[in-house]
Amino acid sequence: MRLSLLTLGIILFAGFVSAQSKLKYVNPLIGTSKMGHTFPGATVPFGSVQLSPDTDTLSYAVDGKYNPDVYKYCAGYQYEDPTIVGFSHTHFSGTGHSDLGDISIMPTSGKLQLNPGIASKPESGFRSAYNHENEMARPNYYSVVLDDHQIKAELTTTTRVGIHRYTFEKEDSAHIILDLIAGIYNYDGKNVNTYVRVVDEYHVVGFRQTTGWAKNRTVYFAIEFSKPIKSYGYNDFQSKKVYQGFWRKFNLKDNFPEMSAAQFRAFFDFDLGPSRQLLLKVALSPVSMEGAVENMEHETPDWNFDGYLRAGGMLWEKELDKFDVQMLDEADLTNFYTAVYHTCLGPTIYQDWSGQYRGLDFSNENNKNGDVNYTTFSLWDTYRALHPLFNLVQRKRNADMVNSMIAHQKQSAEKMLPMWSHYANENWCMIGYHSVSVISDAYNKGLQGIDYDKALDACVQTARTRYFEGIGSYMDLGYVAEDKSGSSVSKTLEYAYDDWCIAQLALGLKRMDIYEEFSKRSANYRHVFDPASGFMRARLSSGKFIEKFDALETHQAGYIEGNAWNYSLYVPHQVDSMIALMGGKKRFASHLDSLFTMQLADKYFEHTEDITREGIMGSYVHGNEPSHHVIYLFDWVGRPDLAQKYIRQVLRTKYVAKIDGLSGNDDCGQMSAWYIFSSLGFYPVCPGSDDYILGSPLVQNAKIHLENGGVIEISAKNQSEKNPYVKAVYFNGIKLKDFKLSYQRLKNGGKLVFEMTNKPAKTF
Amino acid sequence: MRLSLLTLGIILFAGFVSAQSKLKYVNPLIGTSKMGHTFPGATVPFGSVQLSPDTDTLSYAVDGKYNPDVYKYCAGYQYEDPTIVGFSHTHFSGTGHSDLGDISIMPTSGKLQLNPGIASKPESGFRSAYNHENEMARPNYYSVVLDDHQIKAELTTTTRVGIHRYTFEKEDSAHIILDLIAGIYNYDGKNVNTYVRVVDEYHVVGFRQTTGWAKNRTVYFAIEFSKPIKSYGYNDFQSKKVYQGFWRKFNLKDNFPEMSAAQFRAFFDFDLGPSRQLLLKVALSPVSMEGAVENMEHETPDWNFDGYLRAGGMLWEKELDKFDVQMLDEADLTNFYTAVYHTCLGPTIYQDWSGQYRGLDFSNENNKNGDVNYTTFSLWDTYRALHPLFNLVQRKRNADMVNSMIAHQKQSAEKMLPMWSHYANENWCMIGYHSVSVISDAYNKGLQGIDYDKALDACVQTARTRYFEGIGSYMDLGYVAEDKSGSSVSKTLEYAYDDWCIAQLALGLKRMDIYEEFSKRSANYRHVFDPASGFMRARLSSGKFIEKFDALETHQAGYIEGNAWNYSLYVPHQVDSMIALMGGKKRFASHLDSLFTMQLADKYFEHTEDITREGIMGSYVHGNEPSHHVIYLFDWVGRPDLAQKYIRQVLRTKYVAKIDGLSGNDDCGQMSAWYIFSSLGFYPVCPGSDDYILGSPLVQNAKIHLENGGVIEISAKNQSEKNPYVKAVYFNGIKLKDFKLSYQRLKNGGKLVFEMTNKPAKTF
Repeated sequence: MRLSLLTLGIILFAGFVSAQSKLKYVNPLIGTSKMGHTFPGATVPFGSVQLSPDTDTLSYAVDGKYNPDVYKYCAGYQYEDPTIVGFSHTHFSGTGHSDLGDISIMPTSGKLQLNPGIASKPESGFRSAYNHENEMARPNYYSVVLDDHQIKAELTTTTRVGIHRYTFEKEDSAHIILDLIAGIYNYDGKNVNTYVRVVDEYHVVGFRQTTGWAKNRTVYFAIEFSKPIKSYGYNDFQSKKVYQGFWRKFNLKDNFPEMSAAQFRAFFDFDLGPSRQLLLKVALSPVSMEGAVENMEHETPDWNFDGYLRAGGMLWEKELDKFDVQMLDEADLTNFYTAVYHTCLGPTIYQDWSGQYRGLDFSNENNKNGDVNYTTFSLWDTYRALHPLFNLVQRKRNADMVNSMIAHQKQSAEKMLPMWSHYANENWCMIGYHSVSVISDAYNKGLQGIDYDKALDACVQTARTRYFEGIGSYMDLGYVAEDKSGSSVSKTLEYAYDDWCIAQLALGLKRMDIYEEFSKRSANYRHVFDPASGFMRARLSSGKFIEKFDALETHQAGYIEGNAWNYSLYVPHQVDSMIALMGGKKRFASHLDSLFTMQLADKYFEHTEDITREGIMGSYVHGNEPSHHVIYLFDWVGRPDLAQKYIRQVLRTKYVAKIDGLSGNDDCGQMSAWYIFSSLGFYPVCPGSDDYILGSPLVQNAKIHLENGGVIEISAKNQSEKNPYVKAVYFNGIKLKDFKLSYQRLKNGGKLVFEMTNKPAKTF
Repeated sequence: MRLSLLTLGIILFAGFVSAQSKLKYVNPLIGTSKMGHTFPGATVPFGSVQLSPDTDTLSYAVDGKYNPDVYKYCAGYQYEDPTIVGFSHTHFSGTGHSDLGDISIMPTSGKLQLNPGIASKPESGFRSAYNHENEMARPNYYSVVLDDHQIKAELTTTTRVGIHRYTFEKEDSAHIILDLIAGIYNYDGKNVNTYVRVVDEYHVVGFRQTTGWAKNRTVYFAIEFSKPIKSYGYNDFQSKKVYQGFWRKFNLKDNFPEMSAAQFRAFFDFDLGPSRQLLLKVALSPVSMEGAVENMEHETPDWNFDGYLRAGGMLWEKELDKFDVQMLDEADLTNFYTAVYHTCLGPTIYQDWSGQYRGLDFSNENNKNGDVNYTTFSLWDTYRALHPLFNLVQRKRNADMVNSMIAHQKQSAEKMLPMWSHYANENWCMIGYHSVSVISDAYNKGLQGIDYDKALDACVQTARTRYFEGIGSYMDLGYVAEDKSGSSVSKTLEYAYDDWCIAQLALGLKRMDIYEEFSKRSANYRHVFDPASGFMRARLSSGKFIEKFDALETHQAGYIEGNAWNYSLYVPHQVDSMIALMGGKKRFASHLDSLFTMQLADKYFEHTEDITREGIMGSYVHGNEPSHHVIYLFDWVGRPDLAQKYIRQVLRTKYVAKIDGLSGNDDCGQMSAWYIFSSLGFYPVCPGSDDYILGSPLVQNAKIHLENGGVIEISAKNQSEKNPYVKAVYFNGIKLKDFKLSYQRLKNGGKLVFEMTNKPAKTF
């Protein structure tokens, strides 16, 4: 393979990245090894199409049992893998369970093969070896050389269209494999039905319907080729079907314009001509094949690959330019802007350009007035810092997201706000009803364009759904009884916080009945506090605490993705009361410090798929969200120095500017949002409240450009590796006396100055 | 069981049937035994909902092989069967292959059972024994007593809604089983995905998606109960699925408002209260669940079961009243009006009341201006006499049907007119492209509201589809070569006729290039005539006739649903030329007569599932369509007496007013249309031409009320069982000299008088 092919790409990409551009600091490959579960492919901010290479297609189940190896492939790509099996158009960024990987395209040369083959022997199928030296991942651009086929693959996107440019080394037979079997977290029976129609020699449309994490998901697509199809066909890999009906009378596998089955791969052959290039556009729609065609016509009217690449790059620059930061070294800038990049990969736009989208009730909804429907709400993760970050720099989008949640509630059979939803489906992953936090925080931050009374009704209806996850017992007993619903402690604590959010919204709207009801509920965390152990602990309906108890064990009754030690710290809305419960400030301070200094026994790592030894500090697990506010609790007990110390440690060790630099799943941007807030010097411990909690900035200087034109200017004087401690903080020249900084003060901008020092201090 | 329950129904039904009403002559049970494949349930004319009991749910395949027993269940019901397993909402009438049986409802009492059990032991499941004495089938009304559950079931419909009234003998637990596994021609893998949502305590919506005869078919539904649901649940019978996801956290089987799987049955329990009655409305939509809800709101706003029954009865009276006939006895009237009934069961309306329907490209189309989209086009059957009959008495509907065909062509991936299409799918059953006949006949008969130029384009594009069923070889060689495409003789003959239809339309539209091209093609029948054998015979690409040949064998190369003997007579557009080819009139007359007098050896019946010994006369097979014009050919060779004799024999022996009285599949009304035409004294041997061919009427007197107000009055003077022969025919007092009667003369009405006699005569 002539490497000139790849070089060309680098030059081209470099050509439109100005010296000032922050694009160069984004490395989409960060997190693609080990636990990050990010994908390296091309996308625009919040794009519907996230077009990325998949390195394997492991099955979710082998011999009827869960296959733990599949976990690595949540985003379809693992950096260590030697081969690529296709470029698919939908991916989650950083999740810990998965789906998607739709409409996989693989260009091949030579003999037509319709099986992917195995990674250790790529010539056994259409998959190809590749070399990271010939790979490039940039915002809205991905390229790689497929060694087995001697093809340079380049990918770029618009919001709803993936554009592929394939340059073939040899001027011989060119195949495009349309792999409609492939998918992330695939298993036998997941692909329900798939349809492909060859419209003419340049156009193909179809849809793919799956039942997986999303029970009823359909992705519609339209494909345009830059050259006429010479011939096409498919192979149906489903052997079970008895009835093939009168379709038998055609030679369906050869140039018959319709293909329909649960498991098939199609191929399209082309004469390349002297250019040796073949381009594809692949448009998606949540609604219909026509919707996909219209999306393509609207967004990608011509074949200007470089133009789409450039336009997407400009969209990314706009997002990155919301932050102007100076940091201690280039690697920090890479970390920071890659984090910003990762916060713009979800939720994603889920609506045709016309405004049509598929509702949770499978109806076709139509958004008017520029409203945009979003999907992929990983709310147990993202309510913590991602949506609060959006309230600073993505206010219109966050309002659209809130409205998408309210629409979801209206369309839902259960009449509940989203929990973990994607592609017009609720997948019910994790716990809580944290949409209410996002809504309450949006209200607190003054987001416009939301009907908050309707939103409150949706919150209340959600929070009163008795059959959902122990809510009945929670309402009757004041806590979720473990014998009624598992993970009862985690649930009780999170419900109590969520209820506080509802109460705050009700208070703001002067709906005092609701305020009273949910204020009362918000104190329910007290009912699972066990004074004897000093921890939050699972109780039965009888009122008794469950006897078997190990504060460090995650896999025991009462908890999920966190042990009693970590979860007991989860009362973000009433931290002072929690501290009092747990023995007062002094005791709490040393208790909290011991979390970071203890030596956790190996046995606690067993069966925990999303935590690595590197991902923890003592028993503090940064890779799982229940800890994300924990370090900041030191502020409440007069030990901001410890907060500052540990924040710096986390920023330095859990986020490293390398391929395997993320210590845990990025969780749709939540981990990255933590990095952004914390490196700027503050964090939203309690979304729904007005307060950010001060930490220790990693930036030297930063400007946050707000949508209202205001600028928050942050300076960390004497910032250095040796000076992680904060001596004093000034806002607009006035020294802060508290560790809380309100949104009200920040919302129009201002100057936030941290005086950094190497001396720990118990006050600012 | 108190029989009073049933008696009530009879009284009620009788109550609105006036003495003059022709409803009493319709017996929907005719054809439900043996080969008729009709269904006994409730429907309005051309209704979307055809709500009928299913007596078994045999699988299309057993152990991976076709199960020949399933053939009996094309319409879901066999009169001999001892049990009923449910009342489903969609049925074909009289087909020889099948699909549908959607949204099966079974009311039960006592212990909840979610398996149907077996017919020989109904207590093994929810199915129930029943007794024909307690069964009543009338237009838009069906009732039966379900013995095992002591429930009287009554069914009626509107166009898009089935209304169920269940009266329970005992005031105990009442269950409604919503059986979403059941279906006609079911097999493992046919049910792709099914969804049910409990909206509130009175309402349920959902959809069911199948891949069978129709590869991609979705039926949306909405159900309303007259009493609140007490509790509900379901059982998922699909064992293969590994991944159930986070839905596991709910008790999905018990009062959880969403159910989704490929194979499940839901149940709904009710307190009956003193009325002991429970009513259901089940609305269907081709487009969406909301569409079904809107159809229900629009068509069935209240619970007036008797009102819907009455309204549907009036729609039927309107159809039956198009014919006023006097016949020799009551049984003839039953035959005649039941035939009229059977001609109004398809094609069916396939569109929401709003005008929305699902196109063949899965797009949502929207009909305006009162146009109606129809589905279920069994065109190889129905182009012969059913659509020609519609041109007399269903002109607006037939124009809508033609427009539905043209829309189909536009939406089709293959850009072909429908062949055998149902529910937004082409199933490719049988041969030919007979839509062109229906279109050409519509033009010839002056149907308004059709863009005939567009229609001709659609015809031409269809007829030039080279990859379809040997058309390429037909265009190149002048005949379908058997080595290129099977059933080549049948195809060549039918294509030649279809081409003639296209030529006639082109001539009318003065598009002479097309006229020339297709006139030439219309003579292609000559290329498969073998002078040596005197029959139409299969040829190879080389030009040679295939050597192995038995003129009486249906199952040999060259033919489908007809042997060489019968098929060789298929040149309806150039009968004189055909007769000349076959040796001239005299020879042809005796040749043709031998068809009826020969003794067919038993071996020719083997492997023929849709023909019975009773269904044939000599080697003339009335149960299969290729013969339908054959008797009338005697007119061309000066032997109208033989036509008259055999027509009377067919009318007397192949249509008997009993449950098993139909000698073959009614084929969506084609068999019945033959009866209607022939009993009125004429038949459309060549649709697309202006001519009806005279036969021998069975009526004494008849009036056909045309839509333009004209009335065709038919009298058969001296009509009697002994006088099947026709001495003379007069139209408006003028004696006819030819055996042809043009539509032009009939179209505004007039008096057609047959003078009947017992003396055969070779001229009129």
